[in-house]
Amino acid sequence: MTPLDIDELARMTLREDLSSGDLTTEATVATDARGRAVAIAKSPLVACGGALFRRVFALLDPHLTFEAHVADGADVAIGQPVWTVEGNARALLEAERSALNLTQRASGIATMARRFVKAAANDRVRITDTRKTTPGLRALERYAVRVGGAYNHRDNLGAAVLIKDNHIVAAGGVTKAIRLARARAPHTTKIEVEVADLHMLDEALAAGADIVMLDNFELADVVRGVERVNGRALIEVSGGVTLQTVAELAATGVDAISVGALTHSAPAADISLQLSL
Amino acid sequence: MTPLDIDELARMTLREDLSSGDLTTEATVATDARGRAVAIAKSPLVACGGALFRRVFALLDPHLTFEAHVADGADVAIGQPVWTVEGNARALLEAERSALNLTQRASGIATMARRFVKAAANDRVRITDTRKTTPGLRALERYAVRVGGAYNHRDNLGAAVLIKDNHIVAAGGVTKAIRLARARAPHTTKIEVEVADLHMLDEALAAGADIVMLDNFELADVVRGVERVNGRALIEVSGGVTLQTVAELAATGVDAISVGALTHSAPAADISLQLSL
Amino acid sequence: MTPLDIDELARMTLREDLSSGDLTTEATVATDARGRAVAIAKSPLVACGGALFRRVFALLDPHLTFEAHVADGADVAIGQPVWTVEGNARALLEAERSALNLTQRASGIATMARRFVKAAANDRVRITDTRKTTPGLRALERYAVRVGGAYNHRDNLGAAVLIKDNHIVAAGGVTKAIRLARARAPHTTKIEVEVADLHMLDEALAAGADIVMLDNFELADVVRGVERVNGRALIEVSGGVTLQTVAELAATGVDAISVGALTHSAPAADISLQLSL
Amino acid sequence: MTPLDIDELARMTLREDLSSGDLTTEATVATDARGRAVAIAKSPLVACGGALFRRVFALLDPHLTFEAHVADGADVAIGQPVWTVEGNARALLEAERSALNLTQRASGIATMARRFVKAAANDRVRITDTRKTTPGLRALERYAVRVGGAYNHRDNLGAAVLIKDNHIVAAGGVTKAIRLARARAPHTTKIEVEVADLHMLDEALAAGADIVMLDNFELADVVRGVERVNGRALIEVSGGVTLQTVAELAATGVDAISVGALTHSAPAADISLQLSL
Amino acid sequence: MTPLDIDELARMTLREDLSSGDLTTEATVATDARGRAVAIAKSPLVACGGALFRRVFALLDPHLTFEAHVADGADVAIGQPVWTVEGNARALLEAERSALNLTQRASGIATMARRFVKAAANDRVRITDTRKTTPGLRALERYAVRVGGAYNHRDNLGAAVLIKDNHIVAAGGVTKAIRLARARAPHTTKIEVEVADLHMLDEALAAGADIVMLDNFELADVVRGVERVNGRALIEVSGGVTLQTVAELAATGVDAISVGALTHSAPAADISLQLSL
Amino acid sequence: MTPLDIDELARMTLREDLSSGDLTTEATVATDARGRAVAIAKSPLVACGGALFRRVFALLDPHLTFEAHVADGADVAIGQPVWTVEGNARALLEAERSALNLTQRASGIATMARRFVKAAANDRVRITDTRKTTPGLRALERYAVRVGGAYNHRDNLGAAVLIKDNHIVAAGGVTKAIRLARARAPHTTKIEVEVADLHMLDEALAAGADIVMLDNFELADVVRGVERVNGRALIEVSGGVTLQTVAELAATGVDAISVGALTHSAPAADISLQLSL
Repeated sequence: MTPLDIDELARMTLREDLSSGDLTTEATVATDARGRAVAIAKSPLVACGGALFRRVFALLDPHLTFEAHVADGADVAIGQPVWTVEGNARALLEAERSALNLTQRASGIATMARRFVKAAANDRVRITDTRKTTPGLRALERYAVRVGGAYNHRDNLGAAVLIKDNHIVAAGGVTKAIRLARARAPHTTKIEVEVADLHMLDEALAAGADIVMLDNFELADVVRGVERVNGRALIEVSGGVTLQTVAELAATGVDAISVGALTHSAPAADISLQLSL
Repeated sequence: MTPLDIDELARMTLREDLSSGDLTTEATVATDARGRAVAIAKSPLVACGGALFRRVFALLDPHLTFEAHVADGADVAIGQPVWTVEGNARALLEAERSALNLTQRASGIATMARRFVKAAANDRVRITDTRKTTPGLRALERYAVRVGGAYNHRDNLGAAVLIKDNHIVAAGGVTKAIRLARARAPHTTKIEVEVADLHMLDEALAAGADIVMLDNFELADVVRGVERVNGRALIEVSGGVTLQTVAELAATGVDAISVGALTHSAPAADISLQLSL
Repeated sequence: MTPLDIDELARMTLREDLSSGDLTTEATVATDARGRAVAIAKSPLVACGGALFRRVFALLDPHLTFEAHVADGADVAIGQPVWTVEGNARALLEAERSALNLTQRASGIATMARRFVKAAANDRVRITDTRKTTPGLRALERYAVRVGGAYNHRDNLGAAVLIKDNHIVAAGGVTKAIRLARARAPHTTKIEVEVADLHMLDEALAAGADIVMLDNFELADVVRGVERVNGRALIEVSGGVTLQTVAELAATGVDAISVGALTHSAPAADISLQLSL
Repeated sequence: MTPLDIDELARMTLREDLSSGDLTTEATVATDARGRAVAIAKSPLVACGGALFRRVFALLDPHLTFEAHVADGADVAIGQPVWTVEGNARALLEAERSALNLTQRASGIATMARRFVKAAANDRVRITDTRKTTPGLRALERYAVRVGGAYNHRDNLGAAVLIKDNHIVAAGGVTKAIRLARARAPHTTKIEVEVADLHMLDEALAAGADIVMLDNFELADVVRGVERVNGRALIEVSGGVTLQTVAELAATGVDAISVGALTHSAPAADISLQLSL
Repeated sequence: MTPLDIDELARMTLREDLSSGDLTTEATVATDARGRAVAIAKSPLVACGGALFRRVFALLDPHLTFEAHVADGADVAIGQPVWTVEGNARALLEAERSALNLTQRASGIATMARRFVKAAANDRVRITDTRKTTPGLRALERYAVRVGGAYNHRDNLGAAVLIKDNHIVAAGGVTKAIRLARARAPHTTKIEVEVADLHMLDEALAAGADIVMLDNFELADVVRGVERVNGRALIEVSGGVTLQTVAELAATGVDAISVGALTHSAPAADISLQLSL
Repeated sequence: MTPLDIDELARMTLREDLSSGDLTTEATVATDARGRAVAIAKSPLVACGGALFRRVFALLDPHLTFEAHVADGADVAIGQPVWTVEGNARALLEAERSALNLTQRASGIATMARRFVKAAANDRVRITDTRKTTPGLRALERYAVRVGGAYNHRDNLGAAVLIKDNHIVAAGGVTKAIRLARARAPHTTKIEVEVADLHMLDEALAAGADIVMLDNFELADVVRGVERVNGRALIEVSGGVTLQTVAELAATGVDAISVGALTHSAPAADISLQLSL
């Protein structure tokens, strides 16, 4: 999240809510009224998005002051203040929902990521996201995943090779698919192969996969898979991982556990904005 | 969701995932290979987003064929097909995640909306969304709410007046705020006032509010509020409504129940794409 | 008009005039020359667009100083200064036409709006705009209407319901159309119905229209219409309203008079920029 | 106006009116209803914008049929049909205002241009526009000017040199300014100089100006100017030209008469859309 | 290069050349004239950009026909036809320069890439591009590199890790930098380290670098480096590689040779368009 | 290059390289580390793009300091510093390649332009660019041409008339084409005609062309052409001009020599960034 990303995301969000003006605020609040808005956690959460919060308001009042009570990544208890902005009252009211929609989502994902990391309770494994992100918000959501202590998977279809069943069918087998990918993809890129069973796993390893993804494996098969791999490749598991199952998966010795729910189904963190004029 | 909205949303989504190409597909799938992809429900869901699903793929293969097995709004059982596209195999693989990220979210919201409508079990009340939507996706999410059988609240800050506590403070009281809004907002717009207790409710009614929003009222107070209003205004309730509490709220005789969770926290519907090359 | 709208409008305008550079200024004016530019009214006008005027120049010289001699909405006599900017001379010359094209239009509309308001000479009626605005400039033009003392109608097709003849045909009658709109549109939205005669008016009132628009009614029929409505709905008149006819229409007791000419045919206000280097 | 310009202008216009949907049409018109819309002249006008009219509707219904009853540039009498589109009824209703806002403005300008051309009543002189165009619509408005039979001046600040008073001050005199412009501007560009009196005119001619603009000259001085120039440069007159004064100006033998009002103050042509479902 | 990329690149290019219209073509060519344009190689080249060539013209004439005489990647001799379009004559003339500017650049890069591949004369080594691409054209230029038979390096700063001297300074040494990158970057990403001498090479290998980049090494040191690595990592060489030196570098047994000049300094291929009306 | 152009170009460039973040820098450099980066010439060059260099970095660190050691247009010797920025170390590393890709290209073109100007060794002739620019970078490249001491040709198809062979065919001859262009193009625009031989030259002169372009003429024919023209028109020569041939062409007395290679084939200037943290 560079200042450039933050600026563009903030503009896009405000545009959606404010392009017809704010009938209520324009009718009831003086143009030069001033106020202060404090974002308060209404549920325990991991704070995420302070710079974005600030930017949304600053686009409407360039002179406002901003304070982050905690840094991105901090655990915040119910009732604690997270960020404060002070400035033009109309700007505060007009940007309130935009700022919250962005940061509640970001903080919700960071919170979910941290819960998975804690549930895994295992320093040697990394919890990762997937490409199951919200259209338009991928950069923000991946940032939130890192803020929560989890890791990013490949950013997009051009950032790494991940061979799935249909690529294998198209190429004419696991070995051929790996060979083709190795021959054509940038040498900076690892080759990951999604395998459906131990037989495919063997073939992928023999063909030199850098990473194998055990997709929807039973726990016992994950254990067998780890033994089979024996350090020849990184091992990722994927498919229906929950807060309940993540610890036993982590204990098998896999390297990475990817969890689509981190981004596609994390509930928004509950943050409210206390405004005082 | 006009064809224009759909086109722009599909482009934005593809750009995010595909702007660096698809290393895997380009390496393993022939440029002229063909295939078919069937979207299958992996959980019971309300289908939403057929035209968008089609457009995402069509941007990569303008000649593909599309079939909707059900219309938007249909209840789909586990295992049932929802949509089928047939065409260039690279296009199918490259657009898969984009198409699913959009339609899983839309169908997730439609599904959640329908669950609330059913739980309310009351034809005279409408379940509505809020402005707590995903930045960039408001039009899609509002469409999904309607597809699920619920209703939209105001689209943005310029579409209706909704007076909240800070507007009241700024204006110098409920009555003054309503008077200002009435004097300045378009005559096509209703005036809604968020009230925190029965006293404020009385004041809002006396000042001629068109809609009163009972915010975080106890159930007993909602009942009292409905009596007090006695048809003089529409009544909306808001705040922490769940599938468990929605029926008793609906039974009080209120006109609308707004539920932020419809859009900010609906889990993605589980849809998978079965590709055959 | 938030700072965001202003910034984007200013950029768009400059891009159109300056994307190939300014051959004349680059050839004749030193890069570090400084100057002052004063916008002067060449005809009596209502000032509108000070912040936009400033922003256009500031995009080319972020360090310039700006002074508004009058606030938006002020009546300005011929020869009076409106705004002054001081800064880099090239910036002043390059942005001159862009700044004037925007503010002459905005001030022209504000001036026209005020003329209609004065001609109506009636505090109980509001003069409103329509959606007959210049493509791309709707937000600015609606702002100018308000600055001139008139009111805005709905902002766009999603901001309120306005049932016209074809909607009625499609729905199968006035009553059905109103019922459908009431059933489906957000509860925050009023239902307005355009009626062609007193018979339709009766039907619309019976069906509970919130607003009736008497379209191209003879004055006598407007009078009859007002009696018929008798407070059951807001009354808007529309169609060919001129500065000559607006007062007698206003005197009938209608609530709103909508005038497309406010935006589609207001001549630009005559403002010239006196530059001194 | 290439198809690309037309597409982008149509999208921009629809986005402004339709980004929140069309509450009325969605509530009252079936998704598969069909209709026909005929644009009818309600005042005598010069038709302008047929391709744009078509594109606006086609963005919402790609399968609609379009017929132009007259070509751009045709004189259309009151009551005559101009263009017809036939297709999806929702598309017709949703795009109506956008299509009209564009074409009424374009036709208004074309009509005004033709009136000036006719009033000038002189084949040897050209009536031209200025850069006083509507921000965002310059390409359309310049097209309309040509359609009406008038001519375009330079498109933007980079398309030709036009030396005005402040450039002269900055350069240190008329002669120096011309010399600098000649030395630095592309050799494909003519040098035009705005002169305030006959003395400046002499200096500009001596320095080799390609075009002299007699700015706000009395008619008698225009006559003297034409004699003075005696074919050494093109002569443009500018400033407060009206339909009343244009003929006598044209008769003086000048080459071009530039009229800002063509674009900044042309009233919209009156076109209505007769829809039948 | 998906159809989406191609469409956006073609639009951007046309916008730059055609946004003020085409004065010459509009004056001299009838709107319905038709023609044919054949792109002819004026120097030996590798064809690249057929789909883009087509799209540029098709944006101005959707009905034109297109024929590719050779596929992208074909060697084309002087005088040979590459692509033909047939359609509206104005469209052909207006889009000519845009189509050529894109495809001459793309073909120039493909041609340069092939020359390097041939000069290397070694199947086991890959010639790669760098991020030294033209701003705005990276996707096209990387495509051209592949079309010429060379390979892509990482697409952007987020697609792989490449540790350079300043990262090493910031991290506190090669080993620490590699450890940090391994700990934080996605597990799908290889770690490449740019080394300045054999000592750094040893440290990078010891710390587990996946790829080592020998930056500006003397040939003898490259040979020593290859021995030292002995299969423990991929080896890339970089820095001042020319058509003269590439073969001896390739013969050392390195895996990849990256050449910035492929994209930053390839002369445009000489293609002319023969139009016949 | 206004501040607006510079801002948009800098954003576009950064977006391309940084939209997935910078894996290496984020892993190895502290968020608050600071550094200094000095752009050093690695080959003799003409500096071009200082403001753009600054803006690229400033978009990532608004508080950085910038120093230009030389102005745009200065000759810079190998090893000399050109620009220095000091600020946040991450910003310096993340923007390095973007800043260099832009300024190496701009400086490469400025350097090439100056070489041609010097080789021409003739103050009375101007070396000009063509429209053979890089898509998306035309404004920057034309600026670089001027910085190098050469001149711009027309900016785009709407900035001047240039009649080529196909326009002549379409119009029915040179004379007719010139007459049509004169009749329709803005009076501010010169008419240039590309002629293939002395016969066409005569016809163009007779028809009143303002500029004749001798296209791919033998030197002897250029000499004859200059005699023939005898001051009646400006003379431009074009086609395959090189550093070797430019002086003898210049000596013939032509007014302008246009060189496509200035922009389409100038190698990037060699600039490296020395960072110290």
